[in-house]
Amino acid sequence: RRSHMTVSYTDPQVSMDLLRAVLQPSFNNDIMAVFRKYHKFFEKAAENVKENVGEDVQTDQLIREACRNVLEHAKQLFPEGEAKRAGPEVTIKRSRATDEDCG
Amino acid sequence: RRSHMTVSYTDPQVSMDLLRAVLQPSFNNDIMAVFRKYHKFFEKAAENVKENVGEDVQTDQLIREACRNVLEHAKQLFPEGEAKRAGPEVTIKRSRATDEDCG
Repeated sequence: RRSHMTVSYTDPQVSMDLLRAVLQPSFNNDIMAVFRKYHKFFEKAAENVKENVGEDVQTDQLIREACRNVLEHAKQLFPEGEAKRAGPEVTIKRSRATDEDCG
Repeated sequence: RRSHMTVSYTDPQVSMDLLRAVLQPSFNNDIMAVFRKYHKFFEKAAENVKENVGEDVQTDQLIREACRNVLEHAKQLFPEGEAKRAGPEVTIKRSRATDEDCG
């Protein structure tokens, strides 16, 4: 039986996720700023869909779903394991200080 | 005539996802630019974890996992269901330390 509050602060995933949670609001602001750049495209597309398909199309929901899909696909920027999946060729720049101990 | 191709271009989700796929590379560049701002924090944290836990910690994998979790949690900016307007002031729920569904 486990206590509900058992959190190991030496668990690597937990430690990283604590930082993740701290940074998430800032990330969200920056990510929203990115999405605002593209919102007009999604809006236009959703309006076209509504025109073609019918009034029961909920454009807001379509747009939000598309945005969630963007985020889901963006995960391919950070592939699991070593083998890179098919995806964009963007990589994280390492800081020079840590070039020696990669591996 | 390829009758086995049954993609409906009037399917709202399909139409939106075509646009999503077209915009994804641009999104990815912009999202990577955001992540670069925060990369040093994740790098520092992963190095601390490695110091505390041991040499078998793969810092690159920890960082990539944290980045995927950021993207997963950012989906809450675009909630499913009710037509809330997505915006930067959206309250992010505190999540469990281990992430639910980051496939």
